[in-house]
Amino acid sequence: MKRTYIANLTEGECLIKGYVEAIRDKKIMFLVIRDVTGSVQVTIEKSVCPDVYEKAKALTLHSFVAVTGKCVYSEYVRNGGKEIYPTDVDIMSIAEVLPLNAESGQDLRMDYRWIDLRDEKKVFLFKIQTAFEKYAVEFFNKNGFIEIHTPKITALSSEGGSEVFELKNYFGQPAYLTQSPQLYKQMSMMAGFDKTFEIGEYFRANPSFTSRHDTEFTGIDVEISFIESHHEVMDVEEALLKYVIAGVKNDYNEEYKKYFGNDIITMDYDIPRISLTEAYDILKREKNYEVPRALKGDLDPEGERLICEYVKEKFNSDFVFIIDFPAKARAFYSMKQEENPELTKTYDLLFRGIEITSGAQREHRYENLRQNIIENGINPDNMSEYLDFFRYGAPTHGGFGLGITRTLVKLFDLPSVKDVTFLFRGPARLKP
Amino acid sequence: MKRTYIANLTEGECLIKGYVEAIRDKKIMFLVIRDVTGSVQVTIEKSVCPDVYEKAKALTLHSFVAVTGKCVYSEYVRNGGKEIYPTDVDIMSIAEVLPLNAESGQDLRMDYRWIDLRDEKKVFLFKIQTAFEKYAVEFFNKNGFIEIHTPKITALSSEGGSEVFELKNYFGQPAYLTQSPQLYKQMSMMAGFDKTFEIGEYFRANPSFTSRHDTEFTGIDVEISFIESHHEVMDVEEALLKYVIAGVKNDYNEEYKKYFGNDIITMDYDIPRISLTEAYDILKREKNYEVPRALKGDLDPEGERLICEYVKEKFNSDFVFIIDFPAKARAFYSMKQEENPELTKTYDLLFRGIEITSGAQREHRYENLRQNIIENGINPDNMSEYLDFFRYGAPTHGGFGLGITRTLVKLFDLPSVKDVTFLFRGPARLKP
Repeated sequence: MKRTYIANLTEGECLIKGYVEAIRDKKIMFLVIRDVTGSVQVTIEKSVCPDVYEKAKALTLHSFVAVTGKCVYSEYVRNGGKEIYPTDVDIMSIAEVLPLNAESGQDLRMDYRWIDLRDEKKVFLFKIQTAFEKYAVEFFNKNGFIEIHTPKITALSSEGGSEVFELKNYFGQPAYLTQSPQLYKQMSMMAGFDKTFEIGEYFRANPSFTSRHDTEFTGIDVEISFIESHHEVMDVEEALLKYVIAGVKNDYNEEYKKYFGNDIITMDYDIPRISLTEAYDILKREKNYEVPRALKGDLDPEGERLICEYVKEKFNSDFVFIIDFPAKARAFYSMKQEENPELTKTYDLLFRGIEITSGAQREHRYENLRQNIIENGINPDNMSEYLDFFRYGAPTHGGFGLGITRTLVKLFDLPSVKDVTFLFRGPARLKP
Repeated sequence: MKRTYIANLTEGECLIKGYVEAIRDKKIMFLVIRDVTGSVQVTIEKSVCPDVYEKAKALTLHSFVAVTGKCVYSEYVRNGGKEIYPTDVDIMSIAEVLPLNAESGQDLRMDYRWIDLRDEKKVFLFKIQTAFEKYAVEFFNKNGFIEIHTPKITALSSEGGSEVFELKNYFGQPAYLTQSPQLYKQMSMMAGFDKTFEIGEYFRANPSFTSRHDTEFTGIDVEISFIESHHEVMDVEEALLKYVIAGVKNDYNEEYKKYFGNDIITMDYDIPRISLTEAYDILKREKNYEVPRALKGDLDPEGERLICEYVKEKFNSDFVFIIDFPAKARAFYSMKQEENPELTKTYDLLFRGIEITSGAQREHRYENLRQNIIENGINPDNMSEYLDFFRYGAPTHGGFGLGITRTLVKLFDLPSVKDVTFLFRGPARLKP
């Protein structure tokens, strides 16, 4: 017999497969079996089917089974009002006593992440992530982007050395893990690829223990050629987010409501674009807040939180672009503004209080780039392999990187990236 | 004015952006400008537009430009019979003398990969790869798979130590790069995810210098729960390949024909499934070939080539599943056959002479798995963290890994994975 997913059960003969979520064994044995689509009650009366009852007595919580039987509707049953009277229970594996219970703390849950994830709400987060990425891929394909897979191992260590992981045994050569595809997605522009994207893993040897940092994370990276300013980059990112969130909402809003009590956000507005200078003014005027002097050139976490609060009140927007950061606060590859070279054609995208993206138009002119490198106190000879990309012709270009986990954390309003990562990696977390 | 992609040019005012593919400057200057969609001739008469002519004189091969002008149809012009009479040429960057020419060897081409890729046929390979992955993502979403991103850094080094890259500085802990998502995609089955996929990068410290080996590559990995045998895994892989190749063919067959002279393959047949024992018989009977004794338990490259030749002649199939490998030749996590424990529920998929996939039903029963580990000469204590995945309930499950680059190499009939990799990584190749 062909397996039926529990959500699709109708009255009649059936075969379901899943794990035992609950057992109640009085005179009659009740099992709750769950699969990825839902759960259903299996009712076993000893007098009716003594053989099945004997087999089922071996079951423990989270044992995996296949149950053959008859599905009937019953008004006395929760879980959608269906129950199954089994004719056979086939045991795939018996679970030992579970190491997790409702009181287990996050660290123990992470040790046994595969058991922790046996929870419909947690699985739902990954269904949403799957849809999020599907719609992103769809958006890029509809708009003529080429997908690239940039190397994760590199001999170039040009993005600032301190937070880079190094390999021990790359055939006698110094080798590092890439912190971002930055250099290589820029290279794809020099290759004439016009518009590229990548969904991939990146690595940061960041010793921070915050709710938004991890040593390995998944990002969506985008680079586009032949732009005039960073505003075109923002246009692409805004269109991407609108497409993806509308798609996810269309597929999953009902289920989202069930778990989170409210609707997935709607993005029927243009995301406000506020210069950093303007943001400082607004924070002072509207929120009586001044970003600490040492952090001038950027927003601190409290400033990010408050400016998001402001755009929510004022424009009912969950997002805000902060634009035109000073050159001294941005990476050397950012393009300076023609009218005011103190400022760059850069932006951050904030979502519900945190930064989920950095974007910019990049400097594509060899001499200007070299000058920027020197101004940043870096010896351009150490960057010669990167600089070479720009010697044989280069289009104007820009792009952005979007952290998927950070975005999902805020979409679900969850406390930590750990909640939306399949297996979190941090300075003290390398297992399982 | 809004930019027009060259393939979309019609008569009238236009703005195009791209790089200079050719320059001919006699009395009249002719430029060929290429963007990601095609190329077009720009005709500059000094007497008609002296200012534009003066600017254009600075141009070198592969300089990047924006050209404003008027597009007209002309029967004297190649490249689709269009030419542009410019009113302005805006120079983004002037290219230095190119380090590559038609005679440059592969190694130099790889040093300057971004210039090497300025070639419509090479860009086309990445358009196909983009579509290949898009259709894969579509297939998985339509069939209820959940996408996962398994960690690439791990403290578990359980898949055989010799070909693993190790990190130098993971906060004082031993840490490795994963060779495959094997352990973690199995873990996703224990989490009750039912069916999962991942498109990601994997790392092998493999010192081989062959046309099909690299130290970093992109793979599609799949795992499904509640299966009865490896045949269900093959069913999924076959359906995936049919869906993806039909999609790619639908979108790109015409362009493919232009570059490769023939059609993209059609998969309107069931892929033959031949046991390894049967394959040995066929090779002997039909091809007078015997696999060297030392390699018994597998096919050698010559055997793979010949069995593919046979199925092509006999069934007109470009693919063949070789199934039921002996236990001693397969990984410990493969499930043994009930009727004959010498054999496993495993398979390889060969495509035009090379293996592109390994697949199997896995052993999900803790005691059997432990026994397999011991029989493979491994101390099960060293595998305890992996074994733990199976202690708290486990469904039957199986899956496969499909190398994207290997598949594309054979789809295009190209000599090496280097040709279809954006930036190849091998023992002697870490740059750019």
